[in-house]
Amino acid sequence: MPRGFFITFEGLDGSGKTTQLRRLTTSLTKQGHKVVSLRQPGGTALGDRIRGVVLDSRSESSLGAIAPVAELTLMFADRAQAIAEVILPALEDGAIVLCDRFTDSSEAYQGGGRELGSERVLALHVAVCDGLQPDLTILLLPPLEPSLERARNRNQRHVAKLGTDENRFEREGDAFYRRIYEKYQEIAARDAGRVVTIAEEASIQVIEEKIYKIVSARISPDSQGTR
Amino acid sequence: MPRGFFITFEGLDGSGKTTQLRRLTTSLTKQGHKVVSLRQPGGTALGDRIRGVVLDSRSESSLGAIAPVAELTLMFADRAQAIAEVILPALEDGAIVLCDRFTDSSEAYQGGGRELGSERVLALHVAVCDGLQPDLTILLLPPLEPSLERARNRNQRHVAKLGTDENRFEREGDAFYRRIYEKYQEIAARDAGRVVTIAEEASIQVIEEKIYKIVSARISPDSQGTR
Repeated sequence: MPRGFFITFEGLDGSGKTTQLRRLTTSLTKQGHKVVSLRQPGGTALGDRIRGVVLDSRSESSLGAIAPVAELTLMFADRAQAIAEVILPALEDGAIVLCDRFTDSSEAYQGGGRELGSERVLALHVAVCDGLQPDLTILLLPPLEPSLERARNRNQRHVAKLGTDENRFEREGDAFYRRIYEKYQEIAARDAGRVVTIAEEASIQVIEEKIYKIVSARISPDSQGTR
Repeated sequence: MPRGFFITFEGLDGSGKTTQLRRLTTSLTKQGHKVVSLRQPGGTALGDRIRGVVLDSRSESSLGAIAPVAELTLMFADRAQAIAEVILPALEDGAIVLCDRFTDSSEAYQGGGRELGSERVLALHVAVCDGLQPDLTILLLPPLEPSLERARNRNQRHVAKLGTDENRFEREGDAFYRRIYEKYQEIAARDAGRVVTIAEEASIQVIEEKIYKIVSARISPDSQGTR
C-alpha cells in the first residue's frame, strides 16, 4: 500500500492550475516534504512521445483527423506509463505526488467535451489504471464566461503571433467548453470526498493560500492513510 | 449495420499469416470482391506513428522501458483509429476487410504473454472498440516447438545481419511464447464459432487453399448477415 499522498489539479485551460501546482510544489518542498510533480499528457519520455503524436494529430496535417476514441485511449496509454514509471514509485517512496491533469480531465474533455460519455472513460480507468484514485483533487472551476473570454483572447494572440492555431481545443467553440465545465461539476458532486472545487475568481495569491490550507489539512498525520 | 465481412488473421510471429493474408487478398480481388487489407499495429498514418513509438520503446534506448499496460493501451489506441478510419468505413462500403492481427493478438501477447490477463484486455476491447468482432478469424497455430525453432533462427540471422536485436518479442524466451500459444488455444475454444484454427504444418499453397475454402463458405450470400 502506497505511503505517499496523491494530489491532482483539474480545470479548464487558463484556469491557473499549472501556476498553482508550481506554487504548491515550492511551498511543500520548503516545508521539507518530498514532492514529485508531473503533467498529463507527458511526464515520462514515452508520454512526451505520445503527447507529440496527439498534438501533431490536432494540427491535422499529414496524420489525418484523430478519432476521438483513439485520442482518449492515447491519453490512457500515457497515464499507464506515468503511473508505472513515476506515480506509484514516488508514492511508495512516501512522496507527495502532484499531477497536472489525470483521469478527471479525460472524463471532462473526452467524456464530456467530445461526448464519448463517462462510462467509457471510467471503464478505461479501471482497465488501465487499476482504478488508482487521487487522495485529493483540486478543481479550479471559476465561472465559465470570463474563462471563455480569456481563452479566446489568448488564442487570438497565439494566432496573431505564430500564424497558426495549434490548440484544437481552443477552436471548439463555447458549447464544447460548456460540456467540459458541466462534466467537471458532475464529477465534483459525485466524488465530493475527493474533489475540492475552488469556484471563486480571486488573485493567484489568494487561491494559492486557499489551496495550501486545504492540502495541509489533508496531509496532516491524522488524516493520512485513507487508502 | 455493416454490410461487408470482417476477417482477421492471427498467430505467432513466423506462422505465415502475413503471407496468407496477401494471397487471400489477391484471390478475393481476382474474384471481383472489394478487399481492404491492413495490419495492426499500423494501417493508418496515426497508427504508424503509434507503431513507431512502440517499436522505439522496445529497443529501450532513450525512451526507457515501456510499461506492459502502456503497451497494451497503445495497441488499442491504434486499433481505435483503424476502426474509425479504415475498418468501419470499408465494411459500410460492403468490402471484405482483412486485418493482420486484432484484439486476439492483444489478448494472446499482452494478456497471455505479458500475463496482464484476458479480463483487462476484453474490458479495453469493449471500451475502445465497442466490442466490434471479426466475422471470421483465421488462426494459424502449428505445433509450437518447430515454430520456436524457426523464430530463433530468424532472429539469429537478423542479429548477425544487422548487429542489433530489435524484436523484443523474439528475445522473450520460450515460456513467453508458450503462454501466447496457450492463450490462442483458449480463445479458439471460447469463440469456436468465430475462430477457425489451422494447426497443421503444410506448404504455403496447401494452407492457402484451405483458407480459401473456409472463407468462400463464409462469405457466400446465404451465410452473410450474421452481425
